[in-house]
Amino acid sequence: MISVDEARERILQVLHPLPAEIVALADAWQRVAAAPVIARLTQPPADVSAMDGYALRAADGAEGSVLRVIGAAPAGHPFAGAVGAGEAVRLFTGSVVPQGADGILLQEDATRDGDRVRINETVAAGRHIRRAGQDFAAGDAVVPAGRRLTARDVGLAAAANHPWLSVHRRPRVAILATGDEIALPGEPIPPGGIVSSNSHALAALVRAVGGEPMVLPVARDDALMIAAVADSVAGMDMLVTTGGASVGDHDLVIESLKSRGMTLDFWQIAMRPGKPLLFGDLAGTPVLGLPGNPVSAMVCSILFLLPALSRLAGLPAAPPPVSAAILGAAVKANDKRADHLRATISVDGAGRVVATPFPVQDSAMLRRLALADALILRAPHAPSLEAGAEVGVIRLDSLGI
Amino acid sequence: MISVDEARERILQVLHPLPAEIVALADAWQRVAAAPVIARLTQPPADVSAMDGYALRAADGAEGSVLRVIGAAPAGHPFAGAVGAGEAVRLFTGSVVPQGADGILLQEDATRDGDRVRINETVAAGRHIRRAGQDFAAGDAVVPAGRRLTARDVGLAAAANHPWLSVHRRPRVAILATGDEIALPGEPIPPGGIVSSNSHALAALVRAVGGEPMVLPVARDDALMIAAVADSVAGMDMLVTTGGASVGDHDLVIESLKSRGMTLDFWQIAMRPGKPLLFGDLAGTPVLGLPGNPVSAMVCSILFLLPALSRLAGLPAAPPPVSAAILGAAVKANDKRADHLRATISVDGAGRVVATPFPVQDSAMLRRLALADALILRAPHAPSLEAGAEVGVIRLDSLGI
Repeated sequence: MISVDEARERILQVLHPLPAEIVALADAWQRVAAAPVIARLTQPPADVSAMDGYALRAADGAEGSVLRVIGAAPAGHPFAGAVGAGEAVRLFTGSVVPQGADGILLQEDATRDGDRVRINETVAAGRHIRRAGQDFAAGDAVVPAGRRLTARDVGLAAAANHPWLSVHRRPRVAILATGDEIALPGEPIPPGGIVSSNSHALAALVRAVGGEPMVLPVARDDALMIAAVADSVAGMDMLVTTGGASVGDHDLVIESLKSRGMTLDFWQIAMRPGKPLLFGDLAGTPVLGLPGNPVSAMVCSILFLLPALSRLAGLPAAPPPVSAAILGAAVKANDKRADHLRATISVDGAGRVVATPFPVQDSAMLRRLALADALILRAPHAPSLEAGAEVGVIRLDSLGI
Repeated sequence: MISVDEARERILQVLHPLPAEIVALADAWQRVAAAPVIARLTQPPADVSAMDGYALRAADGAEGSVLRVIGAAPAGHPFAGAVGAGEAVRLFTGSVVPQGADGILLQEDATRDGDRVRINETVAAGRHIRRAGQDFAAGDAVVPAGRRLTARDVGLAAAANHPWLSVHRRPRVAILATGDEIALPGEPIPPGGIVSSNSHALAALVRAVGGEPMVLPVARDDALMIAAVADSVAGMDMLVTTGGASVGDHDLVIESLKSRGMTLDFWQIAMRPGKPLLFGDLAGTPVLGLPGNPVSAMVCSILFLLPALSRLAGLPAAPPPVSAAILGAAVKANDKRADHLRATISVDGAGRVVATPFPVQDSAMLRRLALADALILRAPHAPSLEAGAEVGVIRLDSLGI
């Protein structure tokens, strides 16, 4: 058996970020920047007022002085002239500070009377003026490459004058469920069969990390159908299969794809739920074979498929983030397999995050998995722990899956 | 001035969840369930084996016994007959336990020889059998209404045999930036003008909460253009405007829309960045008027627009979640306005979440906002705090914006 970390490392070492494509700014949210976003202008482009009021020479700004208002500079309409001694120009938040002026009289500190304005509070030079480039300067990298673009990044890229952005292509992921016992929802269920949940759960998970899923028809024990799978994954960035990865007698699909040239490693991974994992290559398309059990498939997806897709997407391909929590119930000593206990999260009176494992951890309980807020990590041979002990958890809510 | 909480309450009290529509399961990820998802079948549908092995009568299961193998039951192919005394049936994980059998001999505890199998470890009745309905029973509500569907929920709804799901319609949100000084990215920038960042940042934010943005052309001081806005928002679930909400002289857009029947409250909110907020109604479409400053617009969106869209989307319309953090730097005493300090998040040696505010909090610094991981909440009149004190923060990373 190999460890979770070793399996993940073996998968990641053969994967590379996908090439770039250009998307409209309006479509860039959640995409991964393939190049730094370089500011094409300076923001603010000139010294501007931070407040509504009057621009003047600070030397004229003593309380009690009265100045002559020679014009106005609404935002977007800079004042063309210069401010001389004894003069003021009406302006607003964002207005360019006119030539000659170096102080801002706030509107609430001014008394206007015709073309005259009285200063009720002495003006300090430079105060309430935002300097050119205070936010960013032309040439600055305002968003780094490899970042998944937030709504704020989209706004920043817009402000930096980018109508188009270069982003990594979305990973295209073919998803293949295998098994004679499987029906799609709403279709006739064979005797003793179950409704396939893996394909659409995995498709949603692929979407959650920014990929494009392609759900293949369920593969049965039919050579023609299996040949069709091999043909249909050409050009895909990954093939994910579920089922057919046990030591049982019923992995015709895998054997058939092997006969079509698929290379495949079979790994026993020291983990629960999960254990068997396939990884290989079908004519250039990486193949990840997950267990058929839905809970195992989802946990293995979190541990292996998410980092793999992150690598393809141009993101840091790290293990899922682990945060600290307090155990809400005692847990037994662990055996040699890393365990991933489905747990709910709450916050105790002291504001601490508490993770409470479900009392039964059967890998057939999909409903429990859906209700879980987190997976509690239990290392191989971890000792028993009492309630209140600290553990590491993978938060499922923050992963958006 | 009114408080942030009061303003949010006033907005929410006039908004209601949007009606339901039907979507394919494959399109249901991240949608909000408009009705509980009721299981249409029982899972497992019958008692099934949790392991590969042999079904037998536990009474025959003493170590050293030899049984006759009378058939096999691969998953999806239940054994038609019954298991009698001295008999066993080969089965696999997920296979239906045949009639008559009440024990499972694990494959690794069995020695097979032709149609005989020897028991190497005594079998306990009921062990390794998953009971019918262990995961869920027909009629169970496996996903509650009002839940944003995760990848796991999609899998669970599939397993419960739902090809279609009833979800709340997405909120359709018209977005209107106003101002003569505004250019769209890549377009000619007027003298003293800036590139509009609000429209596309807000569009991304609307997408982040599951809405459908419609970005309107920038509104200038043009009566025809403004009339077009009033017509184009018919049928939208909300109109969000930015700019034109100051006490200055330049809110022609707002005045013009009022002449088209828009009712509008103007609120001074005791907060920073932000302060002025408009809320009203344009022929049945709720109108939320945000500040024109991009940082203020985004912070106000987090505090007011997100809960408003959550209410429309059928989600709990709660304030953004606040979590605890340790201050990474001292902060000054606050004035009468609730403040929202842009901050980075780190984790210290003791595993505590540390929020460190940027030293300059100018609301014109969009780049700082994009770099921020969180907003530190500072209540009106909050006292000065030293580094190490506990504060509440809104995590921007977990909001996905």
